[in-house]
Amino acid sequence: MKVYVTRSYWFSATHRLHSAGLSDEENRVVYGKCNNPHGHGHNYEIEVTVSGPVDPVTGRAVSLDALDMLIDREVLSPLRYRNLNEEVAAFRSAVPTTENLASEVARRLHTTWPEGPKLEKIRIHETDRNICEISG
Amino acid sequence: MKVYVTRSYWFSATHRLHSAGLSDEENRVVYGKCNNPHGHGHNYEIEVTVSGPVDPVTGRAVSLDALDMLIDREVLSPLRYRNLNEEVAAFRSAVPTTENLASEVARRLHTTWPEGPKLEKIRIHETDRNICEISG
Amino acid sequence: MKVYVTRSYWFSATHRLHSAGLSDEENRVVYGKCNNPHGHGHNYEIEVTVSGPVDPVTGRAVSLDALDMLIDREVLSPLRYRNLNEEVAAFRSAVPTTENLASEVARRLHTTWPEGPKLEKIRIHETDRNICEISG
Amino acid sequence: MKVYVTRSYWFSATHRLHSAGLSDEENRVVYGKCNNPHGHGHNYEIEVTVSGPVDPVTGRAVSLDALDMLIDREVLSPLRYRNLNEEVAAFRSAVPTTENLASEVARRLHTTWPEGPKLEKIRIHETDRNICEISG
Amino acid sequence: MKVYVTRSYWFSATHRLHSAGLSDEENRVVYGKCNNPHGHGHNYEIEVTVSGPVDPVTGRAVSLDALDMLIDREVLSPLRYRNLNEEVAAFRSAVPTTENLASEVARRLHTTWPEGPKLEKIRIHETDRNICEISG
Amino acid sequence: MKVYVTRSYWFSATHRLHSAGLSDEENRVVYGKCNNPHGHGHNYEIEVTVSGPVDPVTGRAVSLDALDMLIDREVLSPLRYRNLNEEVAAFRSAVPTTENLASEVARRLHTTWPEGPKLEKIRIHETDRNICEISG
Repeated sequence: MKVYVTRSYWFSATHRLHSAGLSDEENRVVYGKCNNPHGHGHNYEIEVTVSGPVDPVTGRAVSLDALDMLIDREVLSPLRYRNLNEEVAAFRSAVPTTENLASEVARRLHTTWPEGPKLEKIRIHETDRNICEISG
Repeated sequence: MKVYVTRSYWFSATHRLHSAGLSDEENRVVYGKCNNPHGHGHNYEIEVTVSGPVDPVTGRAVSLDALDMLIDREVLSPLRYRNLNEEVAAFRSAVPTTENLASEVARRLHTTWPEGPKLEKIRIHETDRNICEISG
Repeated sequence: MKVYVTRSYWFSATHRLHSAGLSDEENRVVYGKCNNPHGHGHNYEIEVTVSGPVDPVTGRAVSLDALDMLIDREVLSPLRYRNLNEEVAAFRSAVPTTENLASEVARRLHTTWPEGPKLEKIRIHETDRNICEISG
Repeated sequence: MKVYVTRSYWFSATHRLHSAGLSDEENRVVYGKCNNPHGHGHNYEIEVTVSGPVDPVTGRAVSLDALDMLIDREVLSPLRYRNLNEEVAAFRSAVPTTENLASEVARRLHTTWPEGPKLEKIRIHETDRNICEISG
Repeated sequence: MKVYVTRSYWFSATHRLHSAGLSDEENRVVYGKCNNPHGHGHNYEIEVTVSGPVDPVTGRAVSLDALDMLIDREVLSPLRYRNLNEEVAAFRSAVPTTENLASEVARRLHTTWPEGPKLEKIRIHETDRNICEISG
Repeated sequence: MKVYVTRSYWFSATHRLHSAGLSDEENRVVYGKCNNPHGHGHNYEIEVTVSGPVDPVTGRAVSLDALDMLIDREVLSPLRYRNLNEEVAAFRSAVPTTENLASEVARRLHTTWPEGPKLEKIRIHETDRNICEISG
């Protein structure tokens, strides 16, 4: 049997969906009102799922304190109350869709992930209706 | 890494759980109050999960507009504000349990699914406590 | 200071919005798809709010057991898994809108309400977006 | 007995909390990270509560279609996917806090409210933890 | 028009419902399984509602930072991760029902409430089904 | 295609996180306020996921009545309104973290699981932010 621990976090940010690889007209068709040049924003919820053996002494598969510190440093501090297009380097080139936001969070976590429990998946809720998950 | 996009929809419908393959008494035992001949109903929530590579230009794994149009045509229009037993052909023979409803939604989507992103799973919440998922 | 206790319940039912005082065409205009003759249904959530002095011995403003029994007998048993139009006498004449459903629940509770805590309001959620409240 | 109907809507928008009446340092103290010059955003949920007598023919205290059209024209179209500071005239002078956003929604609705049911209150959820309500 | 700001907080605690004014048998009848001598617990959600004029410079009816500090000092620090019966003086004599818990939170806040915005109500969710509100 | 049915349950309980294999100081560091000797509690939500072929006569992959009875007997009765440390044998030795609680629920269900549908996973929500899942 495998044990997965999921912990959720949230942050507010602003973004604009606009691709440098598309004409203005194409951007309007692809992104609709989300292409508004002044931007709009969301309350993003992030779920981070970790797996690993349960330590027989502590009964924990992961230290929630250590996870919280890592997520705070790598995800929440750089993204919370930010304009993703203007203030996050990855979104100079990539469009800050939920797919790319999840990829960026995965990249930040994979490059700093410590030994021990395994990062299994990242799930971002942009709204109650739109969710993007990255795993593997 | 694999990217999954989930989008949720909802509709209200009525149904009655009653199997032609069971006696009246068996129907009452198996379905309890849900066997009431006058029917009852639910607010159904449907989550559709799709996977695929993220387009480097648009940052999207799937066009949400195209997905919405497909779900509207194949799922919401035929099922929303309907009596499943009386108005949906599949439930002339099959009992409209959440399992069969999920199968019917899967069947409708698989037969009309376009090339491109892959339909991964369908998840239907009948109530806050009852969920049925179909995948594979 | 006044103390209010709210307890929530839920039930599934089916209904059709159709008024005998309107023509078929008017019914379609007023109720749209909810006028579908085969009916549709909802998971209704009911919140019952009661006020009263807190008993210094029990620390309770109302006996939740007694409230549950009353709601079960007067509201849930007659409405749960029912077709409101076909099986509830009040909706022979009145259209089972959320407004009339809340009024009917209020009527049932007011006629059987025991001495003691005061029935303050009834709040019915038809969907996540539609709520009707009756008070006073 | 009085009948209240509440209907909820939502929109995404971006804002920056910054007051022209405060120094830069005061703005940072008062608004913290919400003073970030690049802005941040939210999924706002708006609940609109209306009261009125229930029409004995339709069983309705308010036409939801008419309410939806009014809210769409006066609230959702001007605010959805917008930068409140840049694109909404009221927030040239007023800081787009939830309090001022609720006041602006109230002002828009009061000046265009039709005869009939009474506008009772407006409730805006900025996040799951922050709610502002205007009534009276 | 009056402006109300609601902010929600949560804490986990344990309690046992047992009244010194009742016999053991009466305690079991009144509180059922909640009378278990070893206690049980909840994730409590607290909503604090404040009213007041909106400051024309800041656009705020209340300083959320000041409110958070007050709630943290008076409510969360003394109650979070606590055994209410064993560690909170008020529940040496009073039974820690939601009614008495709300009264205790109200008492703590009223005795330390600063000049300015008015404390309007306190609402505690013991579970998704049980809510107690104190106002006035 | 594979069909999964998920049903959710909840119970309130109290626990204390304290390991006999750690010093008092280590316990405080590892568990923080959750190490409080008087305990604290939660509203736990449990989701049980089952898979299996859909019976062509009943349209069901699992009998919800049978599942409810099993969960009631094996999980809810022994854990609901309990002090996990004091009243559940497994937590004499193991620390009642969500990981160990999920393992204990899995153990109870695996040893009593009937022939037929397969137990796929157990998911426990300790709070809105902390989830533990066991599968395989």
